[in-house]
Amino acid sequence: MKLFSFWRSLATFRVRIALNLKGVMPDEIIEINLVKGDQRDAAFRKINPMMAIPALIEDDGTVLFESLAILEDLDETHPNPPLLPKEPKARARVRALAQIVACDTHPLIVPRVREYLAHEYKIDEAGILKWGHHWHTQSLIALETHLSGSPQTGRYCQGDQVTIADICLAGQAAGASYFKCDIAPYPTIKRIVDELNTIDAFARAHPLQQPGAPASV
Amino acid sequence: MKLFSFWRSLATFRVRIALNLKGVMPDEIIEINLVKGDQRDAAFRKINPMMAIPALIEDDGTVLFESLAILEDLDETHPNPPLLPKEPKARARVRALAQIVACDTHPLIVPRVREYLAHEYKIDEAGILKWGHHWHTQSLIALETHLSGSPQTGRYCQGDQVTIADICLAGQAAGASYFKCDIAPYPTIKRIVDELNTIDAFARAHPLQQPGAPASV
Repeated sequence: MKLFSFWRSLATFRVRIALNLKGVMPDEIIEINLVKGDQRDAAFRKINPMMAIPALIEDDGTVLFESLAILEDLDETHPNPPLLPKEPKARARVRALAQIVACDTHPLIVPRVREYLAHEYKIDEAGILKWGHHWHTQSLIALETHLSGSPQTGRYCQGDQVTIADICLAGQAAGASYFKCDIAPYPTIKRIVDELNTIDAFARAHPLQQPGAPASV
Repeated sequence: MKLFSFWRSLATFRVRIALNLKGVMPDEIIEINLVKGDQRDAAFRKINPMMAIPALIEDDGTVLFESLAILEDLDETHPNPPLLPKEPKARARVRALAQIVACDTHPLIVPRVREYLAHEYKIDEAGILKWGHHWHTQSLIALETHLSGSPQTGRYCQGDQVTIADICLAGQAAGASYFKCDIAPYPTIKRIVDELNTIDAFARAHPLQQPGAPASV
C-alpha cells in the first residue's frame, strides 16, 4: 500500500489517523508537495485527476481517493476498532459532524482555492487569512452548538468511542491553527481535541510530526 | 418526516432523489428560501446550526443533516433499492466520485460563499459567475477522466446500478447549468446524466420541478 501524503494536508491527516488506529502501515509514503505544485504533475494526475491528496494505492493496484471514502473503506475492510457506531441515527450524526468539516469547511481553504483567490481576484495575504479565519469560525460555531447541545456527546464527539467525526475534528483544530483561529472559545471542541491529542494514533499522524513540517505554523 | 428544502439547493436535490428512489414520502416539505436568508432564522438555526439545507426531521424528532450523511442513512434504513454497491472497492469508488461533487465542488458555490465573495471582497456578478464556472469545470474534467477511463463505468457511474455517485452527478449537471457551464464537452458525464434524467425519481426531484422554481435558470 502506497499513501500519497503531505505534512500540511488536513485530508491526509484524517487518513493517517485512521491507518494508525487500524494498525495498517503503508509500505511507502510518497510526498506530494502541495506548495510546489506536485499535485498538478502528469504522473499524479493519472492517479487522481482531481489533483488532490490523499490518494492510496492498494497492493492490487486499486486507487482510493477522497478522504471520507477512504475512511469508510478502511472501516469496512478493517473493522477493528470501528470508526462508526452501530446504531443508524448515531452513524448519521457522526457522518454529518464529519461532513461539516470535510464538506462545508475544509474545501474552502485548500491550496487550489487560496491560489485562485490570490491570482484571479488579487486578494492579498491578509485577505486570504481572513477568508480562512471566517470559514473556520463559521464551522467551529456550528460544531460547538452541536456538540455542547447534545446528550450524545461524550468523551468524544459521539459517546466514548473514537469515530470519523473525531478524526475530522482533529483536522479542523489543526486547520484552525493555520489561520490563527483560536479554538479556546469553543470549550466542548477544545476538550475533545485535547483528549484526542493524547491518543498515540492521533499524535503520530499530526501535520507537525510529518517529514518536511516546520516546528510550528 | 419533515424535509427542509429549497428548489435551487443542489444538496437537497440529492436527498429528494434518494427519497423518491426509496419510495419514502415526507409528510411535510418546508421551504427554506436561501435567497431571502431563511437559513439564518433563529428557528432554523436550532435545527441546523450550520444554517444549510437539507435537514430532515424524523417522526421521533431526530434531526438529520448533511446530504451525504442523509443518503447513507436512508440506504442503511431503507435498503431497497441499494444506493451503494456491495463490493468494498466499488463502494469506495462510488463514494469518492460522489465526494468530488459534494466535497470538492459544491461547497465552493453555495450561497454563503458567493455572498461572502461579493460582500467582503467586492467581487461583481461576472466575477462570481467566473468562480462558479471555474470550479464546475475543474470537477467536470476530473469526473470525465474518472468515468471515461474506468471499465467500472457502465450505464451509470458504477456499472448498471444507480448509486449515490449518480445522485451527486445529476446535481453537478444541474449546478453547472446555473453557472452557464456546458456539460456537452464531457461525453461520458452527458451520457449518464441524460440517462438519469429519464428516471422518474430524478426528474421529479429536479430543481426546476420544485415549487417556487423559475421556468429555466
